[in-house]
Amino acid sequence: MNQKNIYVKNMPLGEAKEKWQDALQKISFFDSAHVTKISVEDALGQVTGAPVFAAHSSPAYNAAAMDGIAVHFADLAAASDAAPVRLTGKQFTAVNTGNCLPQEFDAVVMIEDVHYLEENEVELAIPATPWQHVRTIGEDIVATELILPVGHKIRPIDQGAMLATGVTKVLVKEAPLVQVIPTGSELIQPGVAPGPGQIIEFNSRILTGYLNEWGAKATGASPVSDDKEKLRTAISDAVKKNDIVIINAGASAGTRDYTSTVLAELGEVVVHGVAIKPGKPVILAVVNDTPVIGLPGYPVSAILTMRLFVHEMIYNFMDMQKPASQWTAARMSRPIHSAMGVDEFVRITLGQVGTELMATPAGKGAGAVMSLVRADGILTLPAGSEGVGAGEEVQIELLRPLTDVQSTLVAIGSHDNIIDVLANLLHKGRKAIRISSAHVGSMGGIMALRRGEAHLAGSHLLDEKSGEYNISFIKRFLADTKLQLINLCYRQQGLMVAKGNPQAIKGFQDVADKHLSFINRQNGAGTRLLTDKTLKDMGLKPSDINGYEHEEYTHMSVAAAIANGSVDCGMGILAAANALNLDFVPVAEERYDLIIPKQFMDDKKIQALLELIRKNDEFQTLVNSLGGYSLRDSGNIMYEQ
Amino acid sequence: MNQKNIYVKNMPLGEAKEKWQDALQKISFFDSAHVTKISVEDALGQVTGAPVFAAHSSPAYNAAAMDGIAVHFADLAAASDAAPVRLTGKQFTAVNTGNCLPQEFDAVVMIEDVHYLEENEVELAIPATPWQHVRTIGEDIVATELILPVGHKIRPIDQGAMLATGVTKVLVKEAPLVQVIPTGSELIQPGVAPGPGQIIEFNSRILTGYLNEWGAKATGASPVSDDKEKLRTAISDAVKKNDIVIINAGASAGTRDYTSTVLAELGEVVVHGVAIKPGKPVILAVVNDTPVIGLPGYPVSAILTMRLFVHEMIYNFMDMQKPASQWTAARMSRPIHSAMGVDEFVRITLGQVGTELMATPAGKGAGAVMSLVRADGILTLPAGSEGVGAGEEVQIELLRPLTDVQSTLVAIGSHDNIIDVLANLLHKGRKAIRISSAHVGSMGGIMALRRGEAHLAGSHLLDEKSGEYNISFIKRFLADTKLQLINLCYRQQGLMVAKGNPQAIKGFQDVADKHLSFINRQNGAGTRLLTDKTLKDMGLKPSDINGYEHEEYTHMSVAAAIANGSVDCGMGILAAANALNLDFVPVAEERYDLIIPKQFMDDKKIQALLELIRKNDEFQTLVNSLGGYSLRDSGNIMYEQ
Repeated sequence: MNQKNIYVKNMPLGEAKEKWQDALQKISFFDSAHVTKISVEDALGQVTGAPVFAAHSSPAYNAAAMDGIAVHFADLAAASDAAPVRLTGKQFTAVNTGNCLPQEFDAVVMIEDVHYLEENEVELAIPATPWQHVRTIGEDIVATELILPVGHKIRPIDQGAMLATGVTKVLVKEAPLVQVIPTGSELIQPGVAPGPGQIIEFNSRILTGYLNEWGAKATGASPVSDDKEKLRTAISDAVKKNDIVIINAGASAGTRDYTSTVLAELGEVVVHGVAIKPGKPVILAVVNDTPVIGLPGYPVSAILTMRLFVHEMIYNFMDMQKPASQWTAARMSRPIHSAMGVDEFVRITLGQVGTELMATPAGKGAGAVMSLVRADGILTLPAGSEGVGAGEEVQIELLRPLTDVQSTLVAIGSHDNIIDVLANLLHKGRKAIRISSAHVGSMGGIMALRRGEAHLAGSHLLDEKSGEYNISFIKRFLADTKLQLINLCYRQQGLMVAKGNPQAIKGFQDVADKHLSFINRQNGAGTRLLTDKTLKDMGLKPSDINGYEHEEYTHMSVAAAIANGSVDCGMGILAAANALNLDFVPVAEERYDLIIPKQFMDDKKIQALLELIRKNDEFQTLVNSLGGYSLRDSGNIMYEQ
Repeated sequence: MNQKNIYVKNMPLGEAKEKWQDALQKISFFDSAHVTKISVEDALGQVTGAPVFAAHSSPAYNAAAMDGIAVHFADLAAASDAAPVRLTGKQFTAVNTGNCLPQEFDAVVMIEDVHYLEENEVELAIPATPWQHVRTIGEDIVATELILPVGHKIRPIDQGAMLATGVTKVLVKEAPLVQVIPTGSELIQPGVAPGPGQIIEFNSRILTGYLNEWGAKATGASPVSDDKEKLRTAISDAVKKNDIVIINAGASAGTRDYTSTVLAELGEVVVHGVAIKPGKPVILAVVNDTPVIGLPGYPVSAILTMRLFVHEMIYNFMDMQKPASQWTAARMSRPIHSAMGVDEFVRITLGQVGTELMATPAGKGAGAVMSLVRADGILTLPAGSEGVGAGEEVQIELLRPLTDVQSTLVAIGSHDNIIDVLANLLHKGRKAIRISSAHVGSMGGIMALRRGEAHLAGSHLLDEKSGEYNISFIKRFLADTKLQLINLCYRQQGLMVAKGNPQAIKGFQDVADKHLSFINRQNGAGTRLLTDKTLKDMGLKPSDINGYEHEEYTHMSVAAAIANGSVDCGMGILAAANALNLDFVPVAEERYDLIIPKQFMDDKKIQALLELIRKNDEFQTLVNSLGGYSLRDSGNIMYEQ
């Protein structure tokens, strides 16, 4: 029978971590650190495996600390402007900075204070103190002094300090060898377009990348197909040659997920299933005294689970503490509900909007790699929490430096491909302004401005009665906000259809008459309003359109569904159709504006954006090359309050 | 004649930076960035040279998001507990997470909700919604969508996002090629003990290390001796093959510093001499349209000057902004005076002492590599500032993460080699507690506690009258501080003499009688008090001891002077004598205590330290192997108030 026969447990995170620590202790995982002696010149970024002591002193001799002359201080005891002292012959000698001070001298006079009468006669008007301008032997480091303690990550200056004191070899800690084994018959290598049911194997690249950043020596492996024997062989081999083995995936309980069965046969499954989200089906096992971790298949689950269970292991293997994460306080822009009994890890985008750092959930799908590309941080909702409310202060673990977050312009609202053009032009060169954009439709953007989540919202909301764009919606939903409505563009909206328009669609009437399949945009999207108005003007009802209830959230996902052949047509912009090589049946030109609260008008990021859309040639060229746009009002204020 | 003939200017920093920017602009330095196409798999840490767009969508097809069965949602419209729906044959098919959803289905039911009656018959009690548990095509990324903007540093997750969407090659920015040329006939390669006047060439290792960390491709070179022609050849060759050339040193105006002369002959010296400290003699020049920077020879000057003038160039070459530094607010523990008209950069050690982050200058010598190894940050005193007062709040640019600073125990006072033993044992393993120790003598430590600079002070101050250690000094100088005086050790003090004791010294009487040369410790040092009491008890006067006025600040620097043959003897501890292979003539056993304010007694770092000295076997073994110590009272409270 096909149904699952392994039940994944739901062990509390704390208990799972404790069990895992105990298991690692039992196999002496924490005592397995080795050290190796390498050249100091190759040691940058390595961690000292033993304290480092100076082999000799620095300076190794008394050295002139200035360009000038070496003297005996006693000779100058009486020197003054009124009675300068003359030194000749062996009473002084010229020295440059760093020169060894000859044994008979005990002070240096700076060249600026030396009046040369002849090559071997000088006049000096200032007394000297013993050892002035002399770096005495060992002034910096004395032989046998501690330079670096054990467990110290070696920086360039540390290499310098070692070499300066005659240390040329250093004991460093050996990194754990980690192998990441991808599993699944559906996996194909990058470089080939995936057919139905095929998945590009990129997880192992992400996982080894992070493991190496954490200090491991991680390698990938060829994917193992869904074959119990092959998996058994792969694991048996890997545990012999590595300190840690990671299996990705096969951690859940699907019909072909053999990982836990094989691990139980080869060794001991310590934990299978933890009450975390994402990442629940994780497996923690020991085979041949080697820890083997089965990570879930979805990239986001795999990464977050690896951070939870493997990150610390890498450091502990080297008898080190995991470096502290960077955290920031932020205010939730909207509530998040969380299931009790599960530790939940929520991807967060942050925006310095006004004086507050606002935190907004960045997408939920465990497969959504882009949500993690875009995420600025992680919010942990512990098992005892039902979630957090809007406006509540939360602590966010940062995934990128806070300074990057602070230079980010947050755009939430309707999507237009011009936003990507702006994102590139603003990030280019030394401006380095990031745009973080969330595509939630025009009304979603207005609501985001209300919540203080965004600096600006892209909007193309058509008022059915007045035929005007955006203004009536602003008056209704943003009545209390001082703002400017600034035009970004006019753009063609129309029906996107497959290349060659095989159904010969001329407009919505054809869609209704020929019972063609349509894909709609969500409620609150400007395109939805335009669709509804167009249908109404034509006397068509939603029920006349097959697929009216099937909603997507962006132009591009509508276009993708058509390109894939899932549906016959959908409403969208020409740029989206062009991007996916679709044909386009124009329906109307619409106006697309940016709503910008006046409080952000002095923000340098907003000013840079307005400068771009008002006078940048490269911007105009790039937009015109997309097709379907008019920039005749771009940058103009259409309304303000 | 030997005197200098080049006068180094004192140009204000702002003006120097402006002139340099203009010169770089003139040679189109900022337009020289190139991009190169590399495999995404090799792109970790590289910077995108162009925006990256998705080559295909992800998922590339509608995919099951759960293990379960694929269904048509409409079949389940009426399903309920009371009236479950049965599906057979072609009405459903088993799917695993990630499987392609067959064209005829439009929803997935989780395995948990499926009741199998037979292999091809299931019963379902819950209705389904369209596309439930389905990852629709392009849900994560749609083909042609922007994945990464230009100028983005590629992380593992970014590699994953590119590979997931069929991007296998990526344009990245080429790093500038930088060559660091060390100059000076006094330079020798690491691995050889330096003779008089010789200096180990380690600067180029430090400089290339930092340059590479900043993203350059930096290489070193063989040192060029002080020969004008050789220097000319080296520079002429280097500018042809590199984007930036760094000469170290020859930037000052000593008798053999040819750099500026040669640069003026080969090209244009834009700036020579900037009003900064350290780093004044820096040279900024252009040869063959290539920037050439002459850095001062002292390592600290060279590094700080390179941070000022070259750090930003590396990023600007790649048309990027230099990443923001990390800063922290801190309170000065003592005043710093600064010359007006000079931008001064002060190395700072930080200590989280109580609730305040205290900033203390970390040493001044431009040659003091260890001061930069120990420094936690840099304080900038601008040209218009006369300095900062004690207790003043200052902004510190961090050289190590603030979390490292917070896990640092600040010990200021008399030095004892046991402090190094403790530093290693506390930093070992997962405790990762750093000890930052400054050796300023016992009285210096007491003053540091008064100023709130330190968590603890090592002290061995002998009261001449009572014969007691430390207590009378505490009562006098720390009367208002609740504290414990905890014994660390008893130790032998004596006269350190050259190996074999060639002068057959038996004690101070011999030193006086034979007019031997002596090296003393500074006022306020416990050893100085012991010396004075010993001399007094013997009826000797300071003037009877040749060298009484020559002061050093640590046991080890006294030992080094004896090892070097500069002086015949000095007072110190057996451990210091042993470390430098000296002979030792015992004079007295003294007590060495730690003074710890009670407010820090609950601090985990202090508790870890006390645990070590009270019961750790490794500590006892290591200390006993140093010789000259007794731990009979170690950890015991000798006094408290």
